[in-house]
Amino acid sequence: MYPEKFEELITLFEKLPGVGNKTAQRYAFVLLEKEKEQLQKAVDVINGVSEIKKCRICGFLSDDDECVFCKEASRDRSSIMVVAYPQDVVAIEKTGSYLGMYHVLGGLISSSKGIYPEDINIEKLLNRIDENVSEVIIALSPTMDGEMTALYLNKILKEKGVLVTRLAHGLPMGSSLDYADDLTLIKALDNRRKIESD
Amino acid sequence: MYPEKFEELITLFEKLPGVGNKTAQRYAFVLLEKEKEQLQKAVDVINGVSEIKKCRICGFLSDDDECVFCKEASRDRSSIMVVAYPQDVVAIEKTGSYLGMYHVLGGLISSSKGIYPEDINIEKLLNRIDENVSEVIIALSPTMDGEMTALYLNKILKEKGVLVTRLAHGLPMGSSLDYADDLTLIKALDNRRKIESD
Repeated sequence: MYPEKFEELITLFEKLPGVGNKTAQRYAFVLLEKEKEQLQKAVDVINGVSEIKKCRICGFLSDDDECVFCKEASRDRSSIMVVAYPQDVVAIEKTGSYLGMYHVLGGLISSSKGIYPEDINIEKLLNRIDENVSEVIIALSPTMDGEMTALYLNKILKEKGVLVTRLAHGLPMGSSLDYADDLTLIKALDNRRKIESD
Repeated sequence: MYPEKFEELITLFEKLPGVGNKTAQRYAFVLLEKEKEQLQKAVDVINGVSEIKKCRICGFLSDDDECVFCKEASRDRSSIMVVAYPQDVVAIEKTGSYLGMYHVLGGLISSSKGIYPEDINIEKLLNRIDENVSEVIIALSPTMDGEMTALYLNKILKEKGVLVTRLAHGLPMGSSLDYADDLTLIKALDNRRKIESD
């Protein structure tokens, strides 16, 4: 019932994840109210997307061939943290407790989705392992695909003779024990640690 | 931490209603995965927005000077339904039970937001009232601003000597009486109707 150009705008927004027809309409009406120069600004930003590159070393997003982390001379080059997506790098950086390098796989091995080791950024990771790298930290989500990918990486990285570690699994801080699922409780129990006292 | 062009994209999405940083990032990553021609398609659609017009008669969105409803010769020109937003036209049309004309105010009179009668599409509505129009149906949301606008319209339309009606207020179909708010119950009681029997 709307003009075709408006329907096209709604359809465009409907392609975003989790956006149904009602939300897409809301978004479309917001755009409709914008001045021409604001629309032009939006167009410029979207045009800029195709200029965003992936770092040739780690796979994180970058303006140049190398990302901010790979360029930063002060970072600890003996440690590489493997994550699935660029968002994970940002989540870890925000904690301020990791100062090593990153490697972004750009996905996870998944038998259900038909994603194989050669489909994700693993080869470059292997090429980065040399005598200067002493530890690879696997920081993947503890899901089915994440676990499968972690197991695979552990196998091929160990062959390279590097120390492979992974993030701990257990109770999230601030959570209620009685709300934790069984698997998390089992992991937390398995990985229990001696309380350190001074 | 992301490249500037990517941060710009996130900021762009954050301007959409109800979209926070996390959701904006999700949207931005979806765009990042798109091929260049798909991005170009998006740009074309956004560029098309500035070509969307408002119907010179009723104010609904249109490709041309006049919208699909005002152009449709078969519609009943003796009745005009006044709504606040273009979305409301679509909601009413979907019911399939109204075949008259529409008039889109493009907003509601609001003392809190400082929106006065002259700020919304009222003058054109008055100009449309002639001897061919027998009824104006006010179909505004039963909110504070909606009620205020309805009262104002009722006053100035009655001076024109046209029949002014409004949508009924009462219990929504399929709702639980004990979940209805007090105001709705009072309206439903005030507007109670004799049960028609054959």
